[in-house]
Amino acid sequence: MLAQGTRILIVGLGLIGGSYAEGLRKAGYEVGAVTRSQKTLDYALAKGIIDSGSIEVTEDYVSRFDIVVFALYPHVFLSWIERYQGFIRPGALLTDVTGVKRAVVYKVEEMLRPDLEFVGAHPMAGREVYGVENADSSIFKGANYIVTPTPANTEQAVRTCEELGRTLGFGCISRLTPEMHDEMIGFLSQLTHCIAVALMNSKESEHLAKFTGDSFRDLTRIARINEGMWSELFLLNRDELLSQMDLFAEKFGELREAVAEGDIPKMQEMMRISTERRSRFDK
Amino acid sequence: MLAQGTRILIVGLGLIGGSYAEGLRKAGYEVGAVTRSQKTLDYALAKGIIDSGSIEVTEDYVSRFDIVVFALYPHVFLSWIERYQGFIRPGALLTDVTGVKRAVVYKVEEMLRPDLEFVGAHPMAGREVYGVENADSSIFKGANYIVTPTPANTEQAVRTCEELGRTLGFGCISRLTPEMHDEMIGFLSQLTHCIAVALMNSKESEHLAKFTGDSFRDLTRIARINEGMWSELFLLNRDELLSQMDLFAEKFGELREAVAEGDIPKMQEMMRISTERRSRFDK
Repeated sequence: MLAQGTRILIVGLGLIGGSYAEGLRKAGYEVGAVTRSQKTLDYALAKGIIDSGSIEVTEDYVSRFDIVVFALYPHVFLSWIERYQGFIRPGALLTDVTGVKRAVVYKVEEMLRPDLEFVGAHPMAGREVYGVENADSSIFKGANYIVTPTPANTEQAVRTCEELGRTLGFGCISRLTPEMHDEMIGFLSQLTHCIAVALMNSKESEHLAKFTGDSFRDLTRIARINEGMWSELFLLNRDELLSQMDLFAEKFGELREAVAEGDIPKMQEMMRISTERRSRFDK
Repeated sequence: MLAQGTRILIVGLGLIGGSYAEGLRKAGYEVGAVTRSQKTLDYALAKGIIDSGSIEVTEDYVSRFDIVVFALYPHVFLSWIERYQGFIRPGALLTDVTGVKRAVVYKVEEMLRPDLEFVGAHPMAGREVYGVENADSSIFKGANYIVTPTPANTEQAVRTCEELGRTLGFGCISRLTPEMHDEMIGFLSQLTHCIAVALMNSKESEHLAKFTGDSFRDLTRIARINEGMWSELFLLNRDELLSQMDLFAEKFGELREAVAEGDIPKMQEMMRISTERRSRFDK
């Protein structure tokens, strides 16, 4: 767990920022927030999600905190650091919740004051709803929390960042390089979202809704997607995402050819591989 | 509900045949079975899934029944009709559970005795397990049951076939032409299985299992697939499946190009369409 008395500032009170705030305050820490919306701030204060908050970014307020968690769109996060890092107290630890890592971690490191340290993190949790009104730290229970240290990080800061995840109740806390993280997320998350989006774009399927079985529902659940956030995340991981998309398209094309040619051994071989690989997930 | 006293023969005691038997017997009907395996027969008799059964196909046994349900692989079903239809009592109703329709319905009609009637049906239910040992008619609760009549059918026989579905507890009973059925199933079921199989073939992903979130798990649940059955069903619906696969591949390619070119408006437009279409499923 984080040291008692640690004061944590959440920058950006959306679903994830709000859920961090709620969970950390519940765990006994002093939690502040910076958000652009007075309404969001009022809501979070009224519901006891935060102890204090501000819609202005001021040195007086920001410098009170030991840990600063950025829960912003990536480009907003980077320009916040550029503009306001001077307000952060010397020795503070910075971390984030961004879904891509290479594109933020190295840029932040490049411009950060030498007396501050940033450790990237990715809480792999979410819901198909948005905003502080849906904040709920129980979404972290059992979920994956990935820390993406670089050679610029100290072991102590990385551990503190891991403690933050543990305090929030994550089930599995791992370390990956930013590169490994982005490859993994390109395949497991971004590619699957692309598949669901492409599938829903293939056919006006409302008239099919009554015939929709579990398989189609499961496959397309993630087709409900925040287009502003995800288009930004896709482009910030473009090389990895394209290479994962090409890999999938190649295998899909192989299966298509096997169907077209009536190549039963090839079709069955691919089905056996998929059955065997998938069964290991449910162990 | 089916008329009281109706005697029903199930040909093929796998998961679906066994679940039909179990549900119909529980509903108070006399249920017999023909299966090739003595072990399957003994199990079904011991568990009270059927009233009687035979591993031989004899006129004496088969002619006792008013309705005959075929729960066989498509090619086995067609050759059974060719070989044994002479044993079925005049006026009996034949139906099936096959997942593709054009390829069986018209072939059966072509060769069937004029004093018998066949009405195709597709119970859209299943599990990732097989065999009579997993028979469980509760899998039909709330599921779709599709009847695929043709101009050769009488209204009375179609209604009886629908009553069979109602008796088994299906939630939504519909009529579709064999052509509409095959298009729908090509898109909603066969294409989604192809996607899941191709995705699991894309990468040896065991080392990723610890990072696997719900989206990847949901998308690949159906990658566990009976390769004998599904390769046969794919080829019996080859034209429709290929056209659905091509439609999806085209949209997936469009999204890939949008990512490659950083075309944010195009990416966001596809995401908005998918979000909007998908949200209608959950109403």
